[in-house]
Amino acid sequence: MSDTPAPGSPVRLADLAKALGLEAEGDAEVVLRGVAPIAEAEPGDLTFLRSAAFVKDWASSRASAVVTLPDLDVGGRPALRSDDPSRDFYRAAAILVPEPRPRPGVHPTAVVHPEAEVDASAAVGPQCSIGAGARIGARSLLHDGVMVGAGVRIGDDCEIHGRVVLRAAATLGDRVTLQPGVVIGGEGFGYVGDGEGGLRRVHNVGSVIVGDDVEVGANSTIDRGTLGHTRIGRGCKLDNLVQIGHNCVLGDHVVVVAQVGIAGSTRVGDRAVLMGQAGIAGHVQIGAGAFVGPMTGVHKDVAPGERVLGAPQRSERTFHKESAALKRLPELLRRVRRLETAGERDE
Amino acid sequence: MSDTPAPGSPVRLADLAKALGLEAEGDAEVVLRGVAPIAEAEPGDLTFLRSAAFVKDWASSRASAVVTLPDLDVGGRPALRSDDPSRDFYRAAAILVPEPRPRPGVHPTAVVHPEAEVDASAAVGPQCSIGAGARIGARSLLHDGVMVGAGVRIGDDCEIHGRVVLRAAATLGDRVTLQPGVVIGGEGFGYVGDGEGGLRRVHNVGSVIVGDDVEVGANSTIDRGTLGHTRIGRGCKLDNLVQIGHNCVLGDHVVVVAQVGIAGSTRVGDRAVLMGQAGIAGHVQIGAGAFVGPMTGVHKDVAPGERVLGAPQRSERTFHKESAALKRLPELLRRVRRLETAGERDE
Amino acid sequence: MSDTPAPGSPVRLADLAKALGLEAEGDAEVVLRGVAPIAEAEPGDLTFLRSAAFVKDWASSRASAVVTLPDLDVGGRPALRSDDPSRDFYRAAAILVPEPRPRPGVHPTAVVHPEAEVDASAAVGPQCSIGAGARIGARSLLHDGVMVGAGVRIGDDCEIHGRVVLRAAATLGDRVTLQPGVVIGGEGFGYVGDGEGGLRRVHNVGSVIVGDDVEVGANSTIDRGTLGHTRIGRGCKLDNLVQIGHNCVLGDHVVVVAQVGIAGSTRVGDRAVLMGQAGIAGHVQIGAGAFVGPMTGVHKDVAPGERVLGAPQRSERTFHKESAALKRLPELLRRVRRLETAGERDE
Repeated sequence: MSDTPAPGSPVRLADLAKALGLEAEGDAEVVLRGVAPIAEAEPGDLTFLRSAAFVKDWASSRASAVVTLPDLDVGGRPALRSDDPSRDFYRAAAILVPEPRPRPGVHPTAVVHPEAEVDASAAVGPQCSIGAGARIGARSLLHDGVMVGAGVRIGDDCEIHGRVVLRAAATLGDRVTLQPGVVIGGEGFGYVGDGEGGLRRVHNVGSVIVGDDVEVGANSTIDRGTLGHTRIGRGCKLDNLVQIGHNCVLGDHVVVVAQVGIAGSTRVGDRAVLMGQAGIAGHVQIGAGAFVGPMTGVHKDVAPGERVLGAPQRSERTFHKESAALKRLPELLRRVRRLETAGERDE
Repeated sequence: MSDTPAPGSPVRLADLAKALGLEAEGDAEVVLRGVAPIAEAEPGDLTFLRSAAFVKDWASSRASAVVTLPDLDVGGRPALRSDDPSRDFYRAAAILVPEPRPRPGVHPTAVVHPEAEVDASAAVGPQCSIGAGARIGARSLLHDGVMVGAGVRIGDDCEIHGRVVLRAAATLGDRVTLQPGVVIGGEGFGYVGDGEGGLRRVHNVGSVIVGDDVEVGANSTIDRGTLGHTRIGRGCKLDNLVQIGHNCVLGDHVVVVAQVGIAGSTRVGDRAVLMGQAGIAGHVQIGAGAFVGPMTGVHKDVAPGERVLGAPQRSERTFHKESAALKRLPELLRRVRRLETAGERDE
Repeated sequence: MSDTPAPGSPVRLADLAKALGLEAEGDAEVVLRGVAPIAEAEPGDLTFLRSAAFVKDWASSRASAVVTLPDLDVGGRPALRSDDPSRDFYRAAAILVPEPRPRPGVHPTAVVHPEAEVDASAAVGPQCSIGAGARIGARSLLHDGVMVGAGVRIGDDCEIHGRVVLRAAATLGDRVTLQPGVVIGGEGFGYVGDGEGGLRRVHNVGSVIVGDDVEVGANSTIDRGTLGHTRIGRGCKLDNLVQIGHNCVLGDHVVVVAQVGIAGSTRVGDRAVLMGQAGIAGHVQIGAGAFVGPMTGVHKDVAPGERVLGAPQRSERTFHKESAALKRLPELLRRVRRLETAGERDE
């Protein structure tokens, strides 16, 4: 569209304002080429100012323009007014400093099975491999060395980063982003006794179904279902090095911070938040909107909206009360000793 | 063999029973094509019923046949009788819904060193690379993009999933399965002072030796030995994102759940179980049959058969006693205050 | 140089001594071919002996020579004398059992963008891909399947192991080693509300800057900066499966043990040590020389040189006092009950 500045080219403030639906102030003809924090900005850069506390940094900033709150005085210099300067600054950044985007088409070193379907608008990078019956949707990007196993479905507008492995006929919705090294569809940790004192793998037939607008962080792993499927609801955001066990079901918009592990068949409700390094046992129910604190060990259900902390889990209130009490325990030991001595004296 | 149904084709119940060594009941001519949980099954599906509690689900199930206990009444419908319906259902699943298996041979995009030996019955997928002196055993499968470094030995009937890296002349036994993204033979975390305030890597000459029937989960890492070798005993099952440090020695049939980390030179006895996110210090001995609970921090030896929990580790009994006592601590503080007040009154 | 023995060939003790700058004793003509622990050594092997406690192992060792302390009696057998036998043994190992080193040049299956610069002395392995504007320094090694994104800079004498992904125009200094599966420059975990109850990724423009002599362990992940850069200071050593969030700044010579996670924008001072599985919240300052114990949860600043343990963090002293007191808590409950009973009796 002629309205939208071509990404990566220098952009007039007036055009940027139009593209973002914001109000421009001051010299709207100023040309922007990049973005930078307020103290490091050079002429040509856009920066942002999200509270009056930083106004003096703005005074000495060399930036050519600023995204700021509606009522902040920027001394008449070029500005975009926004209710959320941080958010709109990053929207501007996506226009001014876009990520390089590979051209549509399949790189000659990629191996695509004749029975796979790759949309003509998709881009498949060097050394990718795409198995029989796999399907890659419109405008989706596969960076270098992505492995798409047989029967895997990738929706439209997805971005699959380098060295990702997708297998077990996993299905991704639209606008899914997988950071490098993600593994989707590995076999779950499920074994039965082999009758000779060892363990034998259970044959897996389930898959992984990932909703629209999901992101998964680098080197995270999501195991396939054993019989039914492992499901990641729409809008979920998973950080790096996260482990999701077989047959887990995550609702919509669940947030899972780095290094969290969830064992098999656990269910997590919509908009729950699992903080970094939390560990969740298998077959547990975590309710919608629940909050599981960092390093928390969850071994039993968490009610909707409940906040739990500690390993093993306690309610946030109990956790803080116990932690506070624990601090006083060494002193308590002395106080009890004193009471006992007083008692002995009395006898 | 003419006895065994061809995998992936429709199978008569009678033939399935024969292949599994089970008793068929009801109409043994019924043809099965897939497997499903009892409530989701369609005609043509096999399902399972492992206790009387689910009999009413069976009544409304559309499944064509069921694997169930010897004495459960299934109303005369087609059934396979089993002492362990869950185990035999999954055995049936492996016949009805087999994993697609690549054909033997080396994909033209794989790079195989002229001094490597690949058995004629092995399959080497696209974009694999196999170094000098490496050896791949009979019927082993290397999926896409596996890197087999110089001198690495892979036994018979192994399955090495996508993007696995094997280096440092590691040796795998027979029937070893490595999930995608596993790294075997990275350099261990061993440094010496460089005399200038920094650290210099210790030159590693050790390797990794993995026994028969071992499985390693996605994106797990097993470091090579510094001087001697890192050893993983036969039948060990390691889950995803597990870290095994240099020179660790795991006995046979050790179970290591997701995100466990074991520092260098630790020994774990046969059939020990390390639950999720446990952390084990270096140079520790964990006895045979020991149980290390989830998130447990082990910094000293664990006796054979001992059960430890907590960080730092305590015996299971002590851990539960302390946890119960901790719950009463806030109340205890009030009680002691009351005793002190009473004492003051008495004076 | 004619002085230095050719690596991997048999070496006379006299030549080894010269190469290492050590004193040889006994028959300096003995020829060495390998290294081994003292009990497993064969003729032709060099071993080491770091204290008098092992002298009797030496008596029965079949090793051809030993690296040992200046004053330890080795019975006149061939020896190298060293203040630090362990360190010098590994220096010798690097000569006797060197890692195979690929020849300079680009493997024909690697994909190198015409606008990338690869030094003629660098080695680029099979199935690597190198993007536009990337630069690979002198004598750097890229093992198989490394992905070097557009604009990435790799210094001199680096070693990048198999399946590493470098993106977001990351910059590595000289002598950087990345173990297999490392991901540098994934998008950080940063989102803003999308106004419809979901989250929208913040557009990242920052990168990752890694100093000289840094090592990163297998499958670790270092996210790119959102606006400014994520920085890893010179000499830092990161173990396997470590997570470094966007915009973190690590000083020089920081040691980060396996499975540590650091959330976004945290700063870690020079020579701080973070032990295994510690979790560090975002926007925290950890002072120079601080020690964060294993599994410690850091949610607030740690002073320079301070030692913290526990989750949530406490000073090491407090942690040990509280742990000791906790052990006495079950007994304390009984003692308080006794005092209360005594008080009731008195009434």
